[in-house]
Amino acid sequence: MTQTTVSYTAKRTLSAFQTSKCLSVDNINPSVREAKYAVRGELAVKAEEYRQRLNDGDKSLPFESVIFANIGNPQQLDQKPITFFRQVLSLVENPLLLENPEVLKTSFGYKQDVIERAQTLLANVQSVGAYSHSQGAPGIRNSVAKFIENRDGFPANPQDLFLTAGASSGVSTLLSVICNNESAGVLVPIPQYPLYTATLSLLNARCVPYLLEEEKAWGTDVTAILKSIEEAKAAAINVRAVVVINPGNPTGASLSADDIKKVLDVAAEESLVVIADEVYQTNVFKGEFVSFKKRLRQLQKEEPGKYDDVELVSLHSISKGMVGECGHRGGYFELVGFDPLVQEQIYKLVSIGLCPPVVAQCLLECMVNPPVQGEPSYELYQKEYSGIAEGLHKRALSLYNAFQRMEGVEVQEPQGAMYLFPNINLPAKAIEAAKAENRAADEFYCLALLDATGVCVVPGSGFGQKENTLHFRTTFLAPGTDWVERIVQFHSEFMNKYR
Amino acid sequence: MTQTTVSYTAKRTLSAFQTSKCLSVDNINPSVREAKYAVRGELAVKAEEYRQRLNDGDKSLPFESVIFANIGNPQQLDQKPITFFRQVLSLVENPLLLENPEVLKTSFGYKQDVIERAQTLLANVQSVGAYSHSQGAPGIRNSVAKFIENRDGFPANPQDLFLTAGASSGVSTLLSVICNNESAGVLVPIPQYPLYTATLSLLNARCVPYLLEEEKAWGTDVTAILKSIEEAKAAAINVRAVVVINPGNPTGASLSADDIKKVLDVAAEESLVVIADEVYQTNVFKGEFVSFKKRLRQLQKEEPGKYDDVELVSLHSISKGMVGECGHRGGYFELVGFDPLVQEQIYKLVSIGLCPPVVAQCLLECMVNPPVQGEPSYELYQKEYSGIAEGLHKRALSLYNAFQRMEGVEVQEPQGAMYLFPNINLPAKAIEAAKAENRAADEFYCLALLDATGVCVVPGSGFGQKENTLHFRTTFLAPGTDWVERIVQFHSEFMNKYR
Repeated sequence: MTQTTVSYTAKRTLSAFQTSKCLSVDNINPSVREAKYAVRGELAVKAEEYRQRLNDGDKSLPFESVIFANIGNPQQLDQKPITFFRQVLSLVENPLLLENPEVLKTSFGYKQDVIERAQTLLANVQSVGAYSHSQGAPGIRNSVAKFIENRDGFPANPQDLFLTAGASSGVSTLLSVICNNESAGVLVPIPQYPLYTATLSLLNARCVPYLLEEEKAWGTDVTAILKSIEEAKAAAINVRAVVVINPGNPTGASLSADDIKKVLDVAAEESLVVIADEVYQTNVFKGEFVSFKKRLRQLQKEEPGKYDDVELVSLHSISKGMVGECGHRGGYFELVGFDPLVQEQIYKLVSIGLCPPVVAQCLLECMVNPPVQGEPSYELYQKEYSGIAEGLHKRALSLYNAFQRMEGVEVQEPQGAMYLFPNINLPAKAIEAAKAENRAADEFYCLALLDATGVCVVPGSGFGQKENTLHFRTTFLAPGTDWVERIVQFHSEFMNKYR
Repeated sequence: MTQTTVSYTAKRTLSAFQTSKCLSVDNINPSVREAKYAVRGELAVKAEEYRQRLNDGDKSLPFESVIFANIGNPQQLDQKPITFFRQVLSLVENPLLLENPEVLKTSFGYKQDVIERAQTLLANVQSVGAYSHSQGAPGIRNSVAKFIENRDGFPANPQDLFLTAGASSGVSTLLSVICNNESAGVLVPIPQYPLYTATLSLLNARCVPYLLEEEKAWGTDVTAILKSIEEAKAAAINVRAVVVINPGNPTGASLSADDIKKVLDVAAEESLVVIADEVYQTNVFKGEFVSFKKRLRQLQKEEPGKYDDVELVSLHSISKGMVGECGHRGGYFELVGFDPLVQEQIYKLVSIGLCPPVVAQCLLECMVNPPVQGEPSYELYQKEYSGIAEGLHKRALSLYNAFQRMEGVEVQEPQGAMYLFPNINLPAKAIEAAKAENRAADEFYCLALLDATGVCVVPGSGFGQKENTLHFRTTFLAPGTDWVERIVQFHSEFMNKYR
């Protein structure tokens, strides 16, 4: 900056004051303006308004409750938190309870392992009100490393773990580091969880979509990935990473060990960072979850050299699974094969935000290190955990059965995650009516569904879908079957109206 | 993207596999690489290593404990959490306690207002494990609005409040929206809390520094702001916002109503968004805290029209004050005078991250709505609160007195916040020795201090300082006086060595 010495006050008089705002929607950061995030968009806002009106006693609506099937938020609906987790958290929040002999009484319901866990966690973090290490408290990272080792049968290093405020903040950190300029591209499955496209928009980086195969139960086809890479290269996009969501959101699809190998092959060949979003790893109904880390370590053993330089990051969360503790904002990512100097930069980046919520770190520790057989809290934990798992599966199937009965609706058998993503074939007149309102047809349908039934789902266009197809995403978290019937009845009326 | 149909598999053989990593420190996002954040930088990492070595029984170090005076983290040091807050949180974490008659017994220590508060909060958030509204639970925003109204004597609208995961995440959100391209500039006081420069680096926007007046107790001189604006304009920087940290970090300075008016005058005239970082608003020893919002509303009444278009955002936090709940990651910002369409964009941006930690939202509610006279928990709350306030003031004065005794050290009388920022005049030989190690002289000094005493402070260069001056920032949170004496003795030896 050049040095200037002007008398500023002399130049200024009251009349010189402009009265105009600095910020308008036209001059804010265009990357923010362009970002889209339908999960909490117009429909969700409208659903919240309906909920408020019903709460305030409004009787003019054609439904008596709003069903938030737009977001995987189990405890907003029916799901009760797991007792062991919350008992431990109540003690780390108020350690004075540990000095109170009443708490140790049987009548109080706090078993010895609850008390010991709280003591261990407090020894690790000192106070949940203190900033921890920016990567997360070292003792808690040790537990996460052990969990990964037990899951995969391969070692994990606590130094490579970064605890986060939910997977979303981890994705943002990682994409911030990876996207180095406007031509940087990241392969994203379509349909996808819109966090990815939104974050790439914010970073002004390129989303390189690859289509999942709906007709093969939303499988990941490596040919589609290769085709997208080729097209991106032709468009001068520097593809740097591939996102895989496994089990899938919104599709629920679960990848086989062989599919994972194919993705890792491409990553090795094309020098791509693999971003494995594995937050639904315990939400699997069909087959078995295989982690990218495990598969990579197997391949590194089987074919020495070939996979040495693969860079993989795996994300996990306390928000999903049978835990469902979304509001606590916790999770972690593990870096595999990253250059230590890059890892240092990631550390610096997360240190600017100081640390992830410490209570959520404690909850993460409980999730990865739950009571085991023989421990006092095991029986109740196991009962609660399997109750939630069974409930989810039951609801998924009942929703699946309902969709199968609906005209023009095709839906894949539920395999995992918390969602179904049915394909809807709407009559031409409905599509015209949507056009007349300047809306995507699936958005038009979902809005009509909300207005008629109070059921809030997310249009497929919010996740991306193959051209000329229409979908919506619904969670299968809401209790009861009444709301499913509301959808069935609405759909039939909608089809009749626009036939 | 153009459509290409090539048989990809055919082209590929094993030998075609490159084994090279995608990411190196040279090809990651340069904005991440350029960002600096000294508070958790090299010195902090080294201090943590020393702590670990001492923990492991290492007797070779010349000190017996590490003092983390580098970061405002009260509960890592001496400060106990406020009982009322944590009792409430233990109940919202484990609502089953509310059904337990034992909890209501006097011997348990949970008074009626604790129980009622937990019930109210749970009615607001349903479960702390559920995502809340992305701006924060409406009921909690109502409480924050009431707090602001009581503080300022002017209305506050819950719709204009955004609860955050600490002030850091709020700053990141706001700067992301404001900085619209590479020529966007933000006025930042020097010295400053390095979150601002780091976030601007990440956004590839321009930091426009303005110097605080050390000789006037680190006052904010509007002439310096105007001069910086003029220089920035000459350099084709589009100045969009001005950051004011009040009370100051690292300086502790507290702005008068008149100084605030001057900043608002400039903002009105130049159409600048005012970012008022008011996280230390209760940490004031001298004078009285005046919020930017209050001053703006007063001026809008006094001179109708002139300040109508001022856009102000005020940030607050649960991490500082007498609360000191850093690890919970909570806070809020209030938007004043923002265009509703811009506000919508801010909502969309925060919705991508889903919601701030819900337990932290509950804690924020307790902070802004603490027990009042006549309520059962009031007496203990008041005693704990004033005990912390007095302790901070006492320590600040004792550190101030110690610095005054030290050769070549000048320090301003403590006015607020949690820091002192002494000016150190080092001998020429010390400056040469630093150069020989390729280090800034203040960094050299702080590293020597850490190595000799275990006391970790942050060099002034981490915050910015006037050319040819040297400083360091220390918190006055650590208990006892031993560590202060360690600094005094080290300083004397350092001066003698390099005299």
